[in-house]
Amino acid sequence: MSEVYANRRSRLRDHFNAAGTAAALVTRPANVRYLAAAAPHGAVLLLGSQEDLLVCSGPPEDRPFEGRPDDALRVHVLPVHGGADPAVTAADLARGQGADSLAVEEHHLTVSRHRAIAAVAPALRLGDVGGAVEQLRVVKDEEEISCLRIGAEIADQALGELLESILVGRTERHLALELERRLVDHGADGPAFPTSVATGPNSGRRGHRPTDRRVEEGDFLSVCLGATYRGYRCEIGRTFVIGTSPADWQIQLYDLVFSAQRAGREALAPGAAYRDVDRAARHVLDSAGYAEALPPLTGHGVGLEIDEDPQLAPAAMGKLDACVPVTVEPGVHLPGRGGVRIDDTLVVRPEADGGPELLTITTKELLAL
Amino acid sequence: MSEVYANRRSRLRDHFNAAGTAAALVTRPANVRYLAAAAPHGAVLLLGSQEDLLVCSGPPEDRPFEGRPDDALRVHVLPVHGGADPAVTAADLARGQGADSLAVEEHHLTVSRHRAIAAVAPALRLGDVGGAVEQLRVVKDEEEISCLRIGAEIADQALGELLESILVGRTERHLALELERRLVDHGADGPAFPTSVATGPNSGRRGHRPTDRRVEEGDFLSVCLGATYRGYRCEIGRTFVIGTSPADWQIQLYDLVFSAQRAGREALAPGAAYRDVDRAARHVLDSAGYAEALPPLTGHGVGLEIDEDPQLAPAAMGKLDACVPVTVEPGVHLPGRGGVRIDDTLVVRPEADGGPELLTITTKELLAL
Repeated sequence: MSEVYANRRSRLRDHFNAAGTAAALVTRPANVRYLAAAAPHGAVLLLGSQEDLLVCSGPPEDRPFEGRPDDALRVHVLPVHGGADPAVTAADLARGQGADSLAVEEHHLTVSRHRAIAAVAPALRLGDVGGAVEQLRVVKDEEEISCLRIGAEIADQALGELLESILVGRTERHLALELERRLVDHGADGPAFPTSVATGPNSGRRGHRPTDRRVEEGDFLSVCLGATYRGYRCEIGRTFVIGTSPADWQIQLYDLVFSAQRAGREALAPGAAYRDVDRAARHVLDSAGYAEALPPLTGHGVGLEIDEDPQLAPAAMGKLDACVPVTVEPGVHLPGRGGVRIDDTLVVRPEADGGPELLTITTKELLAL
Repeated sequence: MSEVYANRRSRLRDHFNAAGTAAALVTRPANVRYLAAAAPHGAVLLLGSQEDLLVCSGPPEDRPFEGRPDDALRVHVLPVHGGADPAVTAADLARGQGADSLAVEEHHLTVSRHRAIAAVAPALRLGDVGGAVEQLRVVKDEEEISCLRIGAEIADQALGELLESILVGRTERHLALELERRLVDHGADGPAFPTSVATGPNSGRRGHRPTDRRVEEGDFLSVCLGATYRGYRCEIGRTFVIGTSPADWQIQLYDLVFSAQRAGREALAPGAAYRDVDRAARHVLDSAGYAEALPPLTGHGVGLEIDEDPQLAPAAMGKLDACVPVTVEPGVHLPGRGGVRIDDTLVVRPEADGGPELLTITTKELLAL
């Protein structure tokens, strides 16, 4: 496994060396984890001109590791009472290794920390490594996809069990907590993001935070959850109707969002432009007159973070590659009435391999519960 | 209530005006909430030279508000598909109001966002508002303390119920999830931080993340939880012993940590130096030979964030004021054996008002469960 991490670091090193920088400092936790196998709280990764170092703000006993750092890395632990910023220490260590320049993550580092780094190593020319690690993270290896697949199975199980229980009269908050308990029961590290349960007028809202509203007969119920498994985060969203017979407007709205989501899924292919996938889903809703009710994006990448590159949005630039896991999650929310969201995690695969691989397999038929 | 927020903004304005800056941009979410009553996801607050504005990245329907923004503020909503950074828009609006200078939160703003602000408004002199809002937040008003008090009652209730249930054989993760469910049952917005349940050799570790280890006879069980109530976060930690008769080393270690925690609590008074409160608790453990096993701090402020100023630590500068809520949470963890943490949230009060107000009232006797 160590080879995987060494390869990732080597690709990043090629990138910043080509830009004329001798060393790089990675501070964003998901990026540290991607390159070092673990990201203890506050830890930063120095890709030095002589040696790579994981600099931690305290011993692992106090800040439990999520996973073990790659053996090929030297771990440098700061004294627990020193109060030093590991990023500043790492810059000093980079200078000590003889580097004349250091690329940092300007999109993550605060102005204050950047200033502190410049102060401790004034001879070090500071550059920007930009989103280079995030770009490396976009295409997943089969090990990573396998973690996502297991996470999706766990989420499917948790959701499936919920559907077998009695829902009427229970609050959004309780249903969300129960789903999160079930995720953990089935082996998740934890929820991938705060579980969203939305009933009645709240249904269909992206990122709705559960309230004390209780499930009622005739409601739409929309649920969005995901499991974290070995650090990897997936997402599934479904909308149900409560009671025996959905109203006509509910059936129509559901069918529409279902068509939009299918169009999005079918547009997933290596080489497809991000914005074209978004347009495929969005167009269906647009032409039905819901342009105003639409969210800013219809999908996004998933991995060590729940919302990573690419963004499937109207202004997004770039094209899909094989082995990129993304969500496809169009929805319509009608203020005061509610709405529908349908959300899957899929992995982009070439046609020859059977096309997009659906990780979240819970049915998308409109179930009346 | 609007007056409260207007007063807070006015105090901040006095601060940055005195430093020669015409306008300020607040980006740290807890600071936005403190000054604006609400912090929709991604929103920033501009204290302009003519008008105060809450700049949001999307309509409130998509990004549910936690609370409603203060009525005295104008809310500026960016177009949902624009992808603009509210901080950059706010800087542009500050320039439009005729400001020549803008203080930003350099300890929160990333280098990239700072650069984007400088690019959109090159004539604007950018300054640093520093930790000014965090400093305003240290001393709480009675409304804020009342939210903390209710949060502490909720945490006490959740913990009390857990103690009445059967614990042996259950995993740390399940106990943590059950506590979080009970917090919500009793009216919390949610947990104030990830609930920590630590058994046997894990017990006494600060910030331990629950594992699948099951509670066994003879274990120490340490639990740390807190409720968020109307945005305010409190904290309680207790250690119990499982089985009828604690071992001698358990009784001795417990008594020692109890004495240290009591010494810390008794040191809380208006005018007491942060480091003296820390020393009072730390000294008890130090003299018993546990200097190496001690955490970097023995307490910290709580409020809109679970870990805010002041820090009760050896190198902390400053003195306590009345109406500052803090935790007192010394602990000892012996690798391989386990340990003890005892953690309360208290409000500093003058002697004449009865001394420190204990918010978390669950007993600190060593209970055998």
